[in-house]
Amino acid sequence: MSTIERKTLPAACYIDPAWFAAEMEQIFARMWIAAGRVDDIAARGFLRRDVANASVLLVRDGDAVRAFHNVCRHRGTRLCDSETGALSGSIQCPYHGWTYGLDGRLIGAPQMDDVAGFAKDDYPLRGVQSAVWDGHVFINLDDHPPALEAQLGELPGAFRPWRMNELRRVHRLDYTVQANWKLIVQNYNECLHCPIIHPLLNRMHHYLGASNVPSTGNYCGGAMGFKDGVETLSVDGRRRRAPLPGLGEAERQLVNYFAVYPNLLLTLHPDYMLTITIWPETPDRTQLVSTWHFHPDEIARPGFVWEDAVEFWDVTNREDWAISERSHRGIASRGYTPGPYSNRETQLWEFDRFILSRVSETKKATETQSMW
Amino acid sequence: MSTIERKTLPAACYIDPAWFAAEMEQIFARMWIAAGRVDDIAARGFLRRDVANASVLLVRDGDAVRAFHNVCRHRGTRLCDSETGALSGSIQCPYHGWTYGLDGRLIGAPQMDDVAGFAKDDYPLRGVQSAVWDGHVFINLDDHPPALEAQLGELPGAFRPWRMNELRRVHRLDYTVQANWKLIVQNYNECLHCPIIHPLLNRMHHYLGASNVPSTGNYCGGAMGFKDGVETLSVDGRRRRAPLPGLGEAERQLVNYFAVYPNLLLTLHPDYMLTITIWPETPDRTQLVSTWHFHPDEIARPGFVWEDAVEFWDVTNREDWAISERSHRGIASRGYTPGPYSNRETQLWEFDRFILSRVSETKKATETQSMW
Amino acid sequence: MSTIERKTLPAACYIDPAWFAAEMEQIFARMWIAAGRVDDIAARGFLRRDVANASVLLVRDGDAVRAFHNVCRHRGTRLCDSETGALSGSIQCPYHGWTYGLDGRLIGAPQMDDVAGFAKDDYPLRGVQSAVWDGHVFINLDDHPPALEAQLGELPGAFRPWRMNELRRVHRLDYTVQANWKLIVQNYNECLHCPIIHPLLNRMHHYLGASNVPSTGNYCGGAMGFKDGVETLSVDGRRRRAPLPGLGEAERQLVNYFAVYPNLLLTLHPDYMLTITIWPETPDRTQLVSTWHFHPDEIARPGFVWEDAVEFWDVTNREDWAISERSHRGIASRGYTPGPYSNRETQLWEFDRFILSRVSETKKATETQSMW
Repeated sequence: MSTIERKTLPAACYIDPAWFAAEMEQIFARMWIAAGRVDDIAARGFLRRDVANASVLLVRDGDAVRAFHNVCRHRGTRLCDSETGALSGSIQCPYHGWTYGLDGRLIGAPQMDDVAGFAKDDYPLRGVQSAVWDGHVFINLDDHPPALEAQLGELPGAFRPWRMNELRRVHRLDYTVQANWKLIVQNYNECLHCPIIHPLLNRMHHYLGASNVPSTGNYCGGAMGFKDGVETLSVDGRRRRAPLPGLGEAERQLVNYFAVYPNLLLTLHPDYMLTITIWPETPDRTQLVSTWHFHPDEIARPGFVWEDAVEFWDVTNREDWAISERSHRGIASRGYTPGPYSNRETQLWEFDRFILSRVSETKKATETQSMW
Repeated sequence: MSTIERKTLPAACYIDPAWFAAEMEQIFARMWIAAGRVDDIAARGFLRRDVANASVLLVRDGDAVRAFHNVCRHRGTRLCDSETGALSGSIQCPYHGWTYGLDGRLIGAPQMDDVAGFAKDDYPLRGVQSAVWDGHVFINLDDHPPALEAQLGELPGAFRPWRMNELRRVHRLDYTVQANWKLIVQNYNECLHCPIIHPLLNRMHHYLGASNVPSTGNYCGGAMGFKDGVETLSVDGRRRRAPLPGLGEAERQLVNYFAVYPNLLLTLHPDYMLTITIWPETPDRTQLVSTWHFHPDEIARPGFVWEDAVEFWDVTNREDWAISERSHRGIASRGYTPGPYSNRETQLWEFDRFILSRVSETKKATETQSMW
Repeated sequence: MSTIERKTLPAACYIDPAWFAAEMEQIFARMWIAAGRVDDIAARGFLRRDVANASVLLVRDGDAVRAFHNVCRHRGTRLCDSETGALSGSIQCPYHGWTYGLDGRLIGAPQMDDVAGFAKDDYPLRGVQSAVWDGHVFINLDDHPPALEAQLGELPGAFRPWRMNELRRVHRLDYTVQANWKLIVQNYNECLHCPIIHPLLNRMHHYLGASNVPSTGNYCGGAMGFKDGVETLSVDGRRRRAPLPGLGEAERQLVNYFAVYPNLLLTLHPDYMLTITIWPETPDRTQLVSTWHFHPDEIARPGFVWEDAVEFWDVTNREDWAISERSHRGIASRGYTPGPYSNRETQLWEFDRFILSRVSETKKATETQSMW
């Protein structure tokens, strides 16, 4: 029989609700989660993000970004129901009018004064940790997480030339994918499928041409150069915008692909940034938010176009989502057994180790391990 | 930390399927359930009501109301599929023709005569207890329940002046609410939310003006007077019908709001009766049947109108259902923790005690208690 | 109390997910399952069938029919997504291009050569057993099943005159039924309901006129003769096609109804064959594939018609599906208790014994038995 060492995960890791619940607890409720961009939070508004059965409200309190559980401390009402909206200096519950400052303090609680033992100070909004890296907002449901920097490792240094904090969002597309969230990450982390799945992308890169950095327990990725005559990833390979101002000659010749675990796919081109954030809903359904960011100087330039970059990735990503869904169906069926990874899929095997190690950290994980 | 004594229930009571199942067994399958009005059962027809996974058939057998499980004793076929319908003196199964009298006796069973040991007397429809209070029909899935009167306590005496048995249904509206059934009851039992949620209702009552009777383990409620110039609850506060004939001057100046546990919200106005019956389907979905009843003398009067009363409550109740759904979403999320009740929400805390005491009556409840 | 011996099954057998899972394991994953007809597999194509959480690919390899799990051995991708399609001499995975011969051998695996320990011979498609009876293709998910002939018993001999292998499919109708799959089989196995449910069918047969063979553990069935003037089952009882060439005078006067456990309902008329295959999806949802087959000589004849046979059964079967759904709803409700079978329902009781005996064969069954 086969003596292959590196094989795909058992089916339970993709379909078992208990395993999924353990991933949500051990990974999504304990690691830093990419929530969006600072600019997504209006100066006098909020951004709502739902993850690991939490609904999180992001607001700006002066220069600071703050995050809270989106739940009134009175009777548990969801405070903000839409994804974004305006706030007039405070957050008021629509049911009985409990009112919170943008720092989360309870500042109004009608008819509570005569309740013995009640003090407003005891009922602030429950806080959620938040931090910002070059314009990317991260949240952490753990009350005492390690610093975001510990999770990001060398990425902030490596990507400084792209000056991501300067970039501004121009377009957004959302997708619902009927596949386990890990299949999205795995699909992103190899280009062995590019010749078959992606006729357009395959005209831009050589599919075996990735130069990957060593994976860590928190991210993996690498860069791919262009084929001759290609300037960026657009419908025809032409670059219609100036390179990002901080990039050197070498950095203008490649695309960086990094999966920042667990939920950010960060793709840096010579002239724009694509981010995809991953929002698992069930073992077999995942929401994706895809956004394109450009430099403000280019955005301001007459004749600025962005559609070529969006169309390129919309076409390419739909190909990815379709094959990921098909992969999910196969893995979920009786005939699946773990199969061997090629040496072009090392990052996937390393991502799997990350998953296994995180999930098995606690007793909860121990229980679910018996399943496979 | 807070020393508050009266807090909302743990999230499990609203979202856990096992807790919901225990409520169905301990409350909905053991207490008297408001099924509708005697008039809802046509003289030669049936009324179907589904509760606690039972389908119940209500029929009139002469002057008596009778209730049965809506299941053929032969192969288990559902006898009546629509909510109401006609019967021609008996109930016949549409599959193989087993036929039952309106008293439930099996009177026809084709091809069974030659089955050894078979006797028609052994296979009547399984009975369900039923009883009537002033035109309200109640059913009880327990074969040996206490009398309906024991559950109703002082209500029949207190509401005698409204002569509810004389009233006739004029309109009905059904609603599906994506919230736990208890949130509907709790919403009904306080008006602290009225200034924020109900601009129309708040013009009619002073929201702190309720005069409640002491709660029992079976119901709670009280009366609210009108603001100056208001005569009843209608779109403009005008009363377009004569007061109900049995009411004294004082009773014409208020609205009675009673939650008859577990599933009847009974609202008595000077000139009409609103009933809402509550039909839990899942922990997070509840069906509501809302009906408006008027005095026959008024109904017969030329120019009789009822739309002002229906519109008033349709608007107001939709506001209630929306905030209940939002409350459910908050309670179901990771950020929820029980919060403090004000002294204007005492009836809610008492309702919660009713729930806890009923559910913990049996071993099944003991098991689920470990969840919170 | 009743001393009836033969009663219907407990509700759990129809609604409990654990019982359903046991049936899938003990019955659908271990017995021969009717998958379709040899002709359903194009000479250079595939037929996909999903059963018991397996997706099975049927192909023709020269004269042989072969069956495989529809899952790539690399990363588990579903190989063929549609129900039927073309193949160009091999089966290629759409994700990374692993390629299999029609005998299942792995013949291409890009970028795997440098993986230590990898050998193509170790990763053929996982095989599924298949066999053919007179044009009917059967599959078996058990790797070492008894021969198909053992399951079919005397059926091949009994039905030889119908020369089923010569018949060709002319029409197909699919149905989704919201009922447990066993209720479909039980409905098929008795005509006691015919006078009430089937006005059309009841004009063709006398409903008590079945002559059944002794049931085995693998099938049950029998023949019914026609009422005077009826020649076949069509909208008006007229036979518009010549009798099947192998039939004697007696066989031209009746219809054979056989339930070949677990999923084939085979109905043989003087001039055509109707097959219904049963595909359980959940305890309360079943997919049905209904196909009509005629003799090629008739199909080739000018003026050949088939619509009269299709319409007859489409009308009749919709009546069956509707009452089966209603039966399911009754059995699933609180009021159901097992009821007595008549002596006209002996085959149903025998089918129930088959179910109980299969499900209780293993430990898994032992666990679920405690449920009823």
